[in-house]
Amino acid sequence: MRTVDLNADLGEGFGAWTLGDDDALLDVVTSANVACGFHAGDPTTMRRVCERAAERGVRIGAQVGYRDLAGFGRRFVDVAPADLTADVLYQLGALEAFARVAGTRVAYVKPHGALYHALVHHEAQAAAVVEAVRRFDPALPVLGLPGSRWLALAEEAGLTPVVEAFADRAYTPEGTLVSRREQGAVLHDAEEVAARCVRMVTAGEVVAVDGSVVAVRPASLCVHGDSPGAVAMARRVRAALTDAGVALTPFAAADG
Amino acid sequence: MRTVDLNADLGEGFGAWTLGDDDALLDVVTSANVACGFHAGDPTTMRRVCERAAERGVRIGAQVGYRDLAGFGRRFVDVAPADLTADVLYQLGALEAFARVAGTRVAYVKPHGALYHALVHHEAQAAAVVEAVRRFDPALPVLGLPGSRWLALAEEAGLTPVVEAFADRAYTPEGTLVSRREQGAVLHDAEEVAARCVRMVTAGEVVAVDGSVVAVRPASLCVHGDSPGAVAMARRVRAALTDAGVALTPFAAADG
Amino acid sequence: MRTVDLNADLGEGFGAWTLGDDDALLDVVTSANVACGFHAGDPTTMRRVCERAAERGVRIGAQVGYRDLAGFGRRFVDVAPADLTADVLYQLGALEAFARVAGTRVAYVKPHGALYHALVHHEAQAAAVVEAVRRFDPALPVLGLPGSRWLALAEEAGLTPVVEAFADRAYTPEGTLVSRREQGAVLHDAEEVAARCVRMVTAGEVVAVDGSVVAVRPASLCVHGDSPGAVAMARRVRAALTDAGVALTPFAAADG
Amino acid sequence: MRTVDLNADLGEGFGAWTLGDDDALLDVVTSANVACGFHAGDPTTMRRVCERAAERGVRIGAQVGYRDLAGFGRRFVDVAPADLTADVLYQLGALEAFARVAGTRVAYVKPHGALYHALVHHEAQAAAVVEAVRRFDPALPVLGLPGSRWLALAEEAGLTPVVEAFADRAYTPEGTLVSRREQGAVLHDAEEVAARCVRMVTAGEVVAVDGSVVAVRPASLCVHGDSPGAVAMARRVRAALTDAGVALTPFAAADG
Repeated sequence: MRTVDLNADLGEGFGAWTLGDDDALLDVVTSANVACGFHAGDPTTMRRVCERAAERGVRIGAQVGYRDLAGFGRRFVDVAPADLTADVLYQLGALEAFARVAGTRVAYVKPHGALYHALVHHEAQAAAVVEAVRRFDPALPVLGLPGSRWLALAEEAGLTPVVEAFADRAYTPEGTLVSRREQGAVLHDAEEVAARCVRMVTAGEVVAVDGSVVAVRPASLCVHGDSPGAVAMARRVRAALTDAGVALTPFAAADG
Repeated sequence: MRTVDLNADLGEGFGAWTLGDDDALLDVVTSANVACGFHAGDPTTMRRVCERAAERGVRIGAQVGYRDLAGFGRRFVDVAPADLTADVLYQLGALEAFARVAGTRVAYVKPHGALYHALVHHEAQAAAVVEAVRRFDPALPVLGLPGSRWLALAEEAGLTPVVEAFADRAYTPEGTLVSRREQGAVLHDAEEVAARCVRMVTAGEVVAVDGSVVAVRPASLCVHGDSPGAVAMARRVRAALTDAGVALTPFAAADG
Repeated sequence: MRTVDLNADLGEGFGAWTLGDDDALLDVVTSANVACGFHAGDPTTMRRVCERAAERGVRIGAQVGYRDLAGFGRRFVDVAPADLTADVLYQLGALEAFARVAGTRVAYVKPHGALYHALVHHEAQAAAVVEAVRRFDPALPVLGLPGSRWLALAEEAGLTPVVEAFADRAYTPEGTLVSRREQGAVLHDAEEVAARCVRMVTAGEVVAVDGSVVAVRPASLCVHGDSPGAVAMARRVRAALTDAGVALTPFAAADG
Repeated sequence: MRTVDLNADLGEGFGAWTLGDDDALLDVVTSANVACGFHAGDPTTMRRVCERAAERGVRIGAQVGYRDLAGFGRRFVDVAPADLTADVLYQLGALEAFARVAGTRVAYVKPHGALYHALVHHEAQAAAVVEAVRRFDPALPVLGLPGSRWLALAEEAGLTPVVEAFADRAYTPEGTLVSRREQGAVLHDAEEVAARCVRMVTAGEVVAVDGSVVAVRPASLCVHGDSPGAVAMARRVRAALTDAGVALTPFAAADG
């Protein structure tokens, strides 16, 4: 039987501010990318999300980001590698405390926002985050884009790279994401998105923006949840996969 | 042979800013209260202090504080207990990451600044910090003032309370610290301070401001290091204790 | 013709996070208490709110708070008076820049959250905020509760105190607000709230929780906007006042 | 008589942390680049520096930076232009409050750290900062490097660009600064630095690293003050200029 993991960003509020519907998403996903306080995520929110994830058997991942609350981690910051390694270790440790209190552990690492995108090409920052994960716990799988320096360096360092695909993003003929600056980069039709997800998982392919068919083999699918429509889309993706006989289950470390 | 622990605050810089001479202090103390990022302590500094402490066999303690960089944690903040518990868990986890990377563990907890003082009387905040330590690791001893709600509640919760005394502070006839707002609250003569420390450890007593002799039984002595004179005083305290046949050694959990 | 001012908190988002419906409220109120970045309010939000307020002829007030993004300024912070004066000057200056760019000026000052409540009784902090306003611009009126140290000290310093009442809060027989910890402290029925507002403005009285009638003479009424229901209630208050022949207009400095 | 301005960074502490010797520098410079709270500079420090500068007749400039306390503004941040404009307006307004309370005004703008360097080439960020100054007060001169996009765009927008040179930095044959990553980029000999400054001001030239003579016409010289040696060097520069008959005086807006 085919399986796939569904991951989404959670715990991205801060203090009085909330973002997305964490509880609704926890009923849809199998892996929760929990914000660790640098781009979002106050300690009380982190604790609550970890406890609710643990109750539902949803796996907890560390969604590490740049130290930039005002920019929500969406702006590239030219952090020195040694500082970035320390920043990531700090976030990993903080989240691990809440995971342990909830009776579980941090199970994987997924960079957030501008850091996620920087790690595709930025050798020094990619190496710095790999170093942090390796020092913290080399058994932790890391999520990212196929072809990224992040996954390549992680693999070289003995970590387990896990390839993810984005449920609602358009792909280029080369198998990379269409930039958000381009028209049509984000898909809004839930049925179309769900059908694409099923095809990616069952056939290992996706139709690119030029109509060509591209190979993709995601071990995890990323869905979004920061709007009511996004939660409904995530539910539709889950239902379509289940209907197609795909089991939703946290990726195994060996999936990478 | 008599023993006592020497503790001091370390890692209290932030980014480009430094405070105190961490390296000098690490050659004097047996326990390092490492700032955890909320009142001071950026991740790079935390990592470096943990590594240097581990190299020298100095034990690492979590110096947890209010989230208040601008006030250096010296201002009372009326944090709700549940938020304070989460704030402390976050700090404990972050420091634990650096301790582990350095090959060791967080070995005790000591609140900082206004939080330290609040926990003497503030029942709800004291209970909140106790709850954080208990959830994180109930084997961790906690440092504080004798008679504080913090140590009393810690003991009730099954934690190990450890009594500390302050090398350079004047005491009241009741055995509490003279408020810093009073004249003579802080002692500046290194010889006098060193002699008082020896008497506290070997005879279990200290001369109060009114000349009366008060019983004190500290398992740890707190010295300061945020000025060149303070480091010299800390060295003098260590030398005087050694000369008096007192072994400087991290307190045992059973010392409490 | 009777007149009254309607004020509400605006611009209380931060970066990616929003709170309340600023645009909807700007069509209801005559005075906007704009967050200044310490408890909420990033610069981009501050600029936008100031420009939209200026376009609609809504007056801009400085909603100054404690430096506490994580706590949204709702936690008392024991700031030293000199630091509090500087913190308030900083916020006033920052908001003034956006008000001027929008073609207008900061027109009054209203403390936020825990600072608002502290200033009722905390002599030193009340004096510190008064000092900031006096230094920045002694012509600025200040909003607060009748009987507060804040308004009393402001008046002594030559500032113009302006008394406000809360549209949706229950009052004690002494004319103070029922604590939020008590049942019934906040009223939820829009019709009832609107009727109370009309009576406060036209008859100068409000029915207290024990049924007694208490004198109130607000120059401004505070409405809330951080939920869809709150905006509807604010609109109902405005409509009821207009129907009763009350003109909604920014308070004059002489109203105090 | 020849004149030149001496500028230095001041008020770069934060809360309990200090950096540099503000009081010593205020006796040397004619223009103080005061940190505005985003990369350094708490409100209490800003107020004190403004008051002391005003007492000594030292002009106050806004040293605006990226929002990055942990990185001291030394890391490039890819801020969106509209956000950068708002960030700079916020800082300008905040500093203006303290300047006015001290009886003076913000007299010029000089970007700090990574922002200073980004504005040499980064068109969008340079335009964003120019826009902020233009909106805040188009009469404010702006300091920068000759040939930078920052000064070029400022001039196009009708602002007054003022060229500065660095007292202790080596120059390339093209008249640009030797990168700090190169050997010999920073000069440490006070006599040499002082002599270079005199030659720059009186002869309009500096000897580049290859021995060639390059034209420079600074209206202001930047000295540093974040170490005891730096203050001594700044004093030596001032003395040498005075001895050479150069009057130390704030640059006029017309100097640009």
